Amino acid sequence: MIAQGYIGVDIGGTSIRAARFSGDNHVPISKTKVPTQATKGVESVLQRVETAIREVAGDQLLQIAGVGMALPGPLDPHTGILIEAPNMPGWENLPLQSMMTGRVGRPVFIGNDANLAALGEWKFGAGRGHDDVLYLTVSTGIGGGVISSGRMLVGARGLAAEVGHILAIPDGPLCGCGQRGHLEAVASGTAIARVARAKLKAGDGSDSKIWELAGGDLDNVTGAVVGAAAVAGDEFATRLIAEAGTFIGRTLASLLHAYNPSIVIFGGGVSLLGDILLDPVRAAVRQYAMSEAYWRACPIVLAALGDDSGLVGAGVLAMEETGRQPAGLG
Amino acid sequence: MIAQGYIGVDIGGTSIRAARFSGDNHVPISKTKVPTQATKGVESVLQRVETAIREVAGDQLLQIAGVGMALPGPLDPHTGILIEAPNMPGWENLPLQSMMTGRVGRPVFIGNDANLAALGEWKFGAGRGHDDVLYLTVSTGIGGGVISSGRMLVGARGLAAEVGHILAIPDGPLCGCGQRGHLEAVASGTAIARVARAKLKAGDGSDSKIWELAGGDLDNVTGAVVGAAAVAGDEFATRLIAEAGTFIGRTLASLLHAYNPSIVIFGGGVSLLGDILLDPVRAAVRQYAMSEAYWRACPIVLAALGDDSGLVGAGVLAMEETGRQPAGLG
Repeated sequence: MIAQGYIGVDIGGTSIRAARFSGDNHVPISKTKVPTQATKGVESVLQRVETAIREVAGDQLLQIAGVGMALPGPLDPHTGILIEAPNMPGWENLPLQSMMTGRVGRPVFIGNDANLAALGEWKFGAGRGHDDVLYLTVSTGIGGGVISSGRMLVGARGLAAEVGHILAIPDGPLCGCGQRGHLEAVASGTAIARVARAKLKAGDGSDSKIWELAGGDLDNVTGAVVGAAAVAGDEFATRLIAEAGTFIGRTLASLLHAYNPSIVIFGGGVSLLGDILLDPVRAAVRQYAMSEAYWRACPIVLAALGDDSGLVGAGVLAMEETGRQPAGLG
Repeated sequence: MIAQGYIGVDIGGTSIRAARFSGDNHVPISKTKVPTQATKGVESVLQRVETAIREVAGDQLLQIAGVGMALPGPLDPHTGILIEAPNMPGWENLPLQSMMTGRVGRPVFIGNDANLAALGEWKFGAGRGHDDVLYLTVSTGIGGGVISSGRMLVGARGLAAEVGHILAIPDGPLCGCGQRGHLEAVASGTAIARVARAKLKAGDGSDSKIWELAGGDLDNVTGAVVGAAAVAGDEFATRLIAEAGTFIGRTLASLLHAYNPSIVIFGGGVSLLGDILLDPVRAAVRQYAMSEAYWRACPIVLAALGDDSGLVGAGVLAMEETGRQPAGLG
């Protein structure tokens, strides 16, 4: 019997999603979603992942060529070991690839969720037809992934393309990673919320819609709230988003010099903002790139697969690794 | 007759070097060096390149599998077009690959000299055995190249790995590219000389050996002079080199996050400085990398091939592109 079909699994702190793909497009043949319940421990979560895989496989598990798993946090795709997963107690130095291969009896591959979102967008989303893709996901944090000459850039230990941790402002605001001034510390949803709260506290934006959306409580001001206010036309919020966009664009210029992609794709929570964020990003790239050659033929666009980028990318990982696309992951 | 041997050509503003390699190591079977004489025009230089190629080929030109050419300045390795070459009048938008293929009747490939130096160091120099290499050349400017999963990172238009043009200090000193605050503007030989002259002019380092080496004339203070003073034990010069090293190490932390190499190789004029430069680089990387995983198993070393990195890399380019190493350039 010829193996066919690929399963992608996206494991987050809140939910586990699994889908079966034909390999021809991003549309799942079947899919499921269950709560992660990470507090119940590693074994319990792995059992839920296995059940989800078996559910989407139906009676076809033996015909599945491979299973790709998207995980939050650093991991080594070469050894199949997850180094850690934020907010998931006990998920440290787990040989996840072999553990899951043993459970499902099919080849399993693991990847960082932002890297795999890049892979999904490249194969079946906004990056189709491009060989060199830079993907950034901007939500509470900033992550990303890079496709270079048609292959996912992973680095020696799977830690490449940490685009949120490029220095933007020396000695700038504290980053989640413990360093200072990284792009994530300056322009993520968390950073936008921090700046918004400080300004509102200082009396700026007293007539901003943010107050209303946050129920008058500064503690409720999140990046999502600022974004929603901007989308509703609020000037103060729009200015905050534009400032973040300018920082992103300025750092993006360095990333263009580093990777020279032919398309830049933005995913994550900021997708809702669209050009409110991307126009300042584009303007800053034009201002700060060292030559037109970097941006003239390099559109800056939104992700096409929305929340499914990582899930689809996990399926693509399985597809690439099991050799359907020999030109792919090496 | 079986094709064998590869020719590498390194074209600089001053001289053209050509060498024939077996493909097994970096030792030339034959080599030559002639002045570039760029002012005589493109045709004249190409004639000299052709003559150099024929000279190192001897009576074996037909058995040469391919010719690789290292060129200064931006070029598109996919189309074989040189975009420009600094200090070489008329070298703009030249279809160099096809022009030279026509002249020598063998397959010709072109690459950026810093990218090819990375390729040479990876294959036969300090990077042997590594799949993920970051190479930086620090001389009057700062350039570099990246090998990722055993392939040279070139980007959509051959403009990737411009590691000298990563933002180090927002709104910092003017860079040769026209932007501000890039690593090259802060830590290249040119930048070190600029800082040295400013400090000496302000009265700092009045007893520094730099004065003696520069014949008492500030205009003679170059990066090489500061470096020579540091090597001779001069404290003021050593401090200037250390400051540049700290900037390099801090930006290098971002580059480790971007590429996650398993080795970092320094070439160019700074090779003479050794640990005077590299120790501050290493210290800054440890201070500014987001986790130990980036530097613990990633030595920071000097290039092994010296001035020949680019020439050897040009030979490796021919080797990779003509298919001797199918796992190589894609």
